[in-house]
Amino acid sequence: MTTTLPKTMKAAVLRDYTGTSGLYVEERPVPQLKRGQVLVKVHASPINPSDMLFIQGKYGFKKPTPVTPGFEGSGVVVASGGGLLANRLLGKAVICANQAEGDGIWAEYFVTTAMLAVPVQNGITLDQAATALVNPLTAWAIMDMAKRGRHRAIVHTAAASALGKMLIRLQARFGVDVINVVRRETQVEELRKLGAKHVLNSNDSNFDAQLSNLCQQYNVTLAFEAVTGALTGRVLSALQHGGRVRVYGTLSLEDCHINPNDLIFQRKSVDGFWMSDWVKERNLLQVFMAFTNIQKFLRDELQSNVRARYPLARLHEAIADYAANMSGGKVLIVPHSDSQ
Amino acid sequence: MTTTLPKTMKAAVLRDYTGTSGLYVEERPVPQLKRGQVLVKVHASPINPSDMLFIQGKYGFKKPTPVTPGFEGSGVVVASGGGLLANRLLGKAVICANQAEGDGIWAEYFVTTAMLAVPVQNGITLDQAATALVNPLTAWAIMDMAKRGRHRAIVHTAAASALGKMLIRLQARFGVDVINVVRRETQVEELRKLGAKHVLNSNDSNFDAQLSNLCQQYNVTLAFEAVTGALTGRVLSALQHGGRVRVYGTLSLEDCHINPNDLIFQRKSVDGFWMSDWVKERNLLQVFMAFTNIQKFLRDELQSNVRARYPLARLHEAIADYAANMSGGKVLIVPHSDSQ
Repeated sequence: MTTTLPKTMKAAVLRDYTGTSGLYVEERPVPQLKRGQVLVKVHASPINPSDMLFIQGKYGFKKPTPVTPGFEGSGVVVASGGGLLANRLLGKAVICANQAEGDGIWAEYFVTTAMLAVPVQNGITLDQAATALVNPLTAWAIMDMAKRGRHRAIVHTAAASALGKMLIRLQARFGVDVINVVRRETQVEELRKLGAKHVLNSNDSNFDAQLSNLCQQYNVTLAFEAVTGALTGRVLSALQHGGRVRVYGTLSLEDCHINPNDLIFQRKSVDGFWMSDWVKERNLLQVFMAFTNIQKFLRDELQSNVRARYPLARLHEAIADYAANMSGGKVLIVPHSDSQ
Repeated sequence: MTTTLPKTMKAAVLRDYTGTSGLYVEERPVPQLKRGQVLVKVHASPINPSDMLFIQGKYGFKKPTPVTPGFEGSGVVVASGGGLLANRLLGKAVICANQAEGDGIWAEYFVTTAMLAVPVQNGITLDQAATALVNPLTAWAIMDMAKRGRHRAIVHTAAASALGKMLIRLQARFGVDVINVVRRETQVEELRKLGAKHVLNSNDSNFDAQLSNLCQQYNVTLAFEAVTGALTGRVLSALQHGGRVRVYGTLSLEDCHINPNDLIFQRKSVDGFWMSDWVKERNLLQVFMAFTNIQKFLRDELQSNVRARYPLARLHEAIADYAANMSGGKVLIVPHSDSQ
């Protein structure tokens, strides 16, 4: 199968790491393929917190500019650079991931090694496939760590996020309770309806006492924290002796404030969790299997709610919409929506 | 040997955890001994940072009040509660330690289990013996950890402290370089004279760059931090990928400020180190052996400089003197100095 491909495409291009002001939509050449690579006609790619950090130069790596952002997405393979695996993907709908090298997925076309283009399973829409990786894999990894560490319960902040909702839905499967921390009262009710047993609002006056009580009741020594600022230290203080806060996000963009007495006298610790490290610790086949397995749960435990879809031409509007309500559902970039 | 003992003694007594304002010098009964215990006529007991935290209720534990502070000291055994070991100590000069239970050593007499009263070796003065534990053991433990972890160099903050000077003197014995961080320019010269190869002033405008460069040069991934505040995070940022800051003191009494990106994207972590945990992880014999071995180095690597000696009656003056210049040498409480 060979499709006649255009010579150029529209793509988001980050010229410098100044956030949205460094971001443009440009006409770029459609990339050439090497053996083992495939060209994906992009269906959709979400805006994630990691993208926001990346365009500001605050992510775990910087790439040479100009560069196209977008860490995950979905699409259809329209060309192969040769090789058995790449050739077999021709015409298939795939889940795409982009990491430390090369252009990302906020573009009409995206090049990837065939090994990391995972065929979309029956019954999964391309919209669902577009957000199949970052949040679902992180949620799965968090619950897996909690279970392997024999934690009866964990604390999770930023609990109203798409990831937070996945953790709540995964509780039963992993046998791990989640103590959810949100920042607004409306989110408390929303998460209760989803099946959350414990939801605390960090702006409540007795939040610290409530969280300490729950941590004592369930002997909680593990927390996943994505807000930073004072909340990191408040969660650390609430954990039981030996407790560990793993920071995986920086929604407030503030430093973590930690009470040193928790570290010295309570054997507590703070470290980080980055999905990219999790992926690096596994070989390509293990990553491929994880990407494949995760799809079984995309329609239930690991579903994401899409609240808006924007063509590339409205990229800045899409980012503004996303930033205004980061826990209100996924915002997708849909590069070919004009022609669909 | 039996000495006629007084019925009462002078002792520092903490009535509540309000710092120096909760601290009094009172007449108290000389304690009764149980089998296996000895009564020590106290020669001297230093004021340490841990004592300052303890009287403010900020230490790792609180004891029921009223209680006598003082975690370490020296003296002569003047009575035995019976038992072979206790009886053999009669008349001997000993090093004393007090931990989580009972009255401390800021008193004319102190009761301890005979197992933790370590005979002072020949050539060690009772003043030297009074500060033989807290700092020397911590210094030894830090260098031991660095060596076992195959660290070529470590970062140490509060480097002008008595402990900091011990680390500098221990460099050659352990084959571990110390990168010393101080807060005043006069301390830079002082530590250089002691043999420090690397001394940085955290108030220098290019401190962060200098520290990063040294950490890169020596591939430093371990730091011991006792200042807290912004310095914890600055040291963490300077360490190489995977770096770990172990907080063992809180001299600024501030929270630790940590850049979450160091945790997430650099696999760095922050935890604590408490000598009390180190002791708990060992059995009584191991602790006794450590206390004994440490004496070999009290006159050289592990020496402390005593800058002032105060009788109990001038306790508040002693604490004020200590607090005014915590790195200026040890301040000793000498309970019997009136009669010496």
